Amino acid sequence: MAENQTVRFGIIGCAGIARKVARAIKLAPNSTLYAIASRSIEKAQKFAGNNGLSGTVKTYGSYDQLLDDPCVDAVYMPLPTSLHLHWAVLAAQKKKHLLLEKPTALDVGALDQILEACESNGVQFMDGSMWLHHPRTAKLKELISESNNFGQINIIRSTSTKSVTQDFRESNIRVKPDLDALGALGDLGWYCIGAILWAKDYKLPTLVNALPDVTKNSAGVILSCTASFYWEPLDETVATIHCSFLSHTSMDLAISGCNGSLHCNDYIIPYQEKSASFAFTSGATFLEHHIGWNVRPEEVRVISELPQEALMVEEFARLVKGIMKFGHRPDSKWPEISRNTQVVLDAVKKSIDLGCKPVKL
Amino acid sequence: MAENQTVRFGIIGCAGIARKVARAIKLAPNSTLYAIASRSIEKAQKFAGNNGLSGTVKTYGSYDQLLDDPCVDAVYMPLPTSLHLHWAVLAAQKKKHLLLEKPTALDVGALDQILEACESNGVQFMDGSMWLHHPRTAKLKELISESNNFGQINIIRSTSTKSVTQDFRESNIRVKPDLDALGALGDLGWYCIGAILWAKDYKLPTLVNALPDVTKNSAGVILSCTASFYWEPLDETVATIHCSFLSHTSMDLAISGCNGSLHCNDYIIPYQEKSASFAFTSGATFLEHHIGWNVRPEEVRVISELPQEALMVEEFARLVKGIMKFGHRPDSKWPEISRNTQVVLDAVKKSIDLGCKPVKL
Repeated sequence: MAENQTVRFGIIGCAGIARKVARAIKLAPNSTLYAIASRSIEKAQKFAGNNGLSGTVKTYGSYDQLLDDPCVDAVYMPLPTSLHLHWAVLAAQKKKHLLLEKPTALDVGALDQILEACESNGVQFMDGSMWLHHPRTAKLKELISESNNFGQINIIRSTSTKSVTQDFRESNIRVKPDLDALGALGDLGWYCIGAILWAKDYKLPTLVNALPDVTKNSAGVILSCTASFYWEPLDETVATIHCSFLSHTSMDLAISGCNGSLHCNDYIIPYQEKSASFAFTSGATFLEHHIGWNVRPEEVRVISELPQEALMVEEFARLVKGIMKFGHRPDSKWPEISRNTQVVLDAVKKSIDLGCKPVKL
Repeated sequence: MAENQTVRFGIIGCAGIARKVARAIKLAPNSTLYAIASRSIEKAQKFAGNNGLSGTVKTYGSYDQLLDDPCVDAVYMPLPTSLHLHWAVLAAQKKKHLLLEKPTALDVGALDQILEACESNGVQFMDGSMWLHHPRTAKLKELISESNNFGQINIIRSTSTKSVTQDFRESNIRVKPDLDALGALGDLGWYCIGAILWAKDYKLPTLVNALPDVTKNSAGVILSCTASFYWEPLDETVATIHCSFLSHTSMDLAISGCNGSLHCNDYIIPYQEKSASFAFTSGATFLEHHIGWNVRPEEVRVISELPQEALMVEEFARLVKGIMKFGHRPDSKWPEISRNTQVVLDAVKKSIDLGCKPVKL
């Protein structure tokens, strides 16, 4: 791989999210969108046409063909979750670096097979959690890590909700038992769980408890749930998540420490691309007579030169290039983040399956 | 009582909060601060002096004396919770209208004795939840009641936290088993519970479940807890509260419906007196490629001519005047609100006492 050569991506599957990542690959300076595969050549060509890619990308009518193309360095895979195990393992075996859409797998057993395939084939793994790559996320982390201004984290609350149609609730891919059997927990709860783990530096909770407000569709797939998380012993943090296909769009992350608190209500997808903000408060107390506050929340705004998904692609491609050009080892940070998220997601699922009993980790 | 005559208040107990309410009584156009009682005349005089009231209010060295003063129409009582039953019942028996600081009682059994005394003596009861009287609260209610822009309420989250010193945690009145045995649940959780009941039009939940993150001081009084609430059947609402003496100042109220959501992070005490705001979002979805939102939260700002505590006093005095001058019956809305709040608070306490087991109502 030459110094100025970009990482060549193949996209496997033409899901809606693929359009966003195709754009991100074009925006990331170290990446090129090289090929697209769908289950039929017509679908792949239509995707290329709809996204202004005709003539600039190869189109394949099968996933195998794309994986057999030696010019493809890395694969972005937004397939339904139930297909991840087969295709992700195959991609790794074909030495393709793997950017896998979330949720990564139906359970951690399947994810471990994927991660093992990546490791034994020396390819980089990363899941598609874009928000982790936004510079705002780094700023949030910096602030909650300050012992004076923030202090020990006591409460983390995260939500990921959107209101979908009745039709979606019964028949969309994301709530089909044979495609995305994890439903709202997989599609939306992945972010909530990711956020609380991120806040806790990926320290796994010791106790996970789904709350009794679980709603499922007629096929038994989760449409809405709430869960709580505890770290024992000697850790006063409590975290709660709420993910739902039944509620108005929300993506709230609220964290409180002894000395500070923050609120970010668009943590997964910022309101706008170029800059994003959150509210930070530290050292708040009341005025005399308790008739007001001594401080007001500060709006902390962070500029982003590239959209967060392009930053994700850029970071992934940077690691890929390090492996391909300099013989680096794959970065273990990203598969570890994914694995911890999947482990906790599995525990929430288990708690729900047990009738919302507590699950120890 | 003459047309232009104001309601004459006596304050029983010189707690910190009494200073705020003394100011509120002065600000409310239909109220006069007439007398102050403490357990010693020196304390009462000191309070009067510190609050610019010397010479304008009567001072009493015992609560009984104040209650025996026929010129006192109404009593504001910010005593420790364990003293409410005795003094509130006595006040009612002496025909004093009763503005009782929250939490109203150690349990609903005690509160019922107070409410019964008020009813049988024909006096108005109201608890000291000031935020219910802010015009912002009415605006919030208006918005969450709109079926198109908000829809059915799915999630309610409320917090009331403040970080106190180690010394406070062990020895302040609010965490003393013989004074305020309900600890953070009584002092702070009262607001959280009040907020979720307010959002649900005071419909009682059918299931209350404290979460296992309870922290107590060495005397066994609650310093921090979390709880969840459900309304069954056929109601998809889930509510969570978190109240704590261990976390940075917060008073968050977040409510989501099918079609809208709102965030108010100073719902108990507004950041400033003259105006207060909250963020309201309705019909949010994502732009093409999911690279941003179609709408941004709207900041809804509400002007308040008087501080919320003065509005509370004014409303209470208006009801008192209606009774005294026009022979109206006491308004049952306020005791009902207090009673429902106490019932749910008791259920949280019971759930905690049972080891965080679910409690049915």
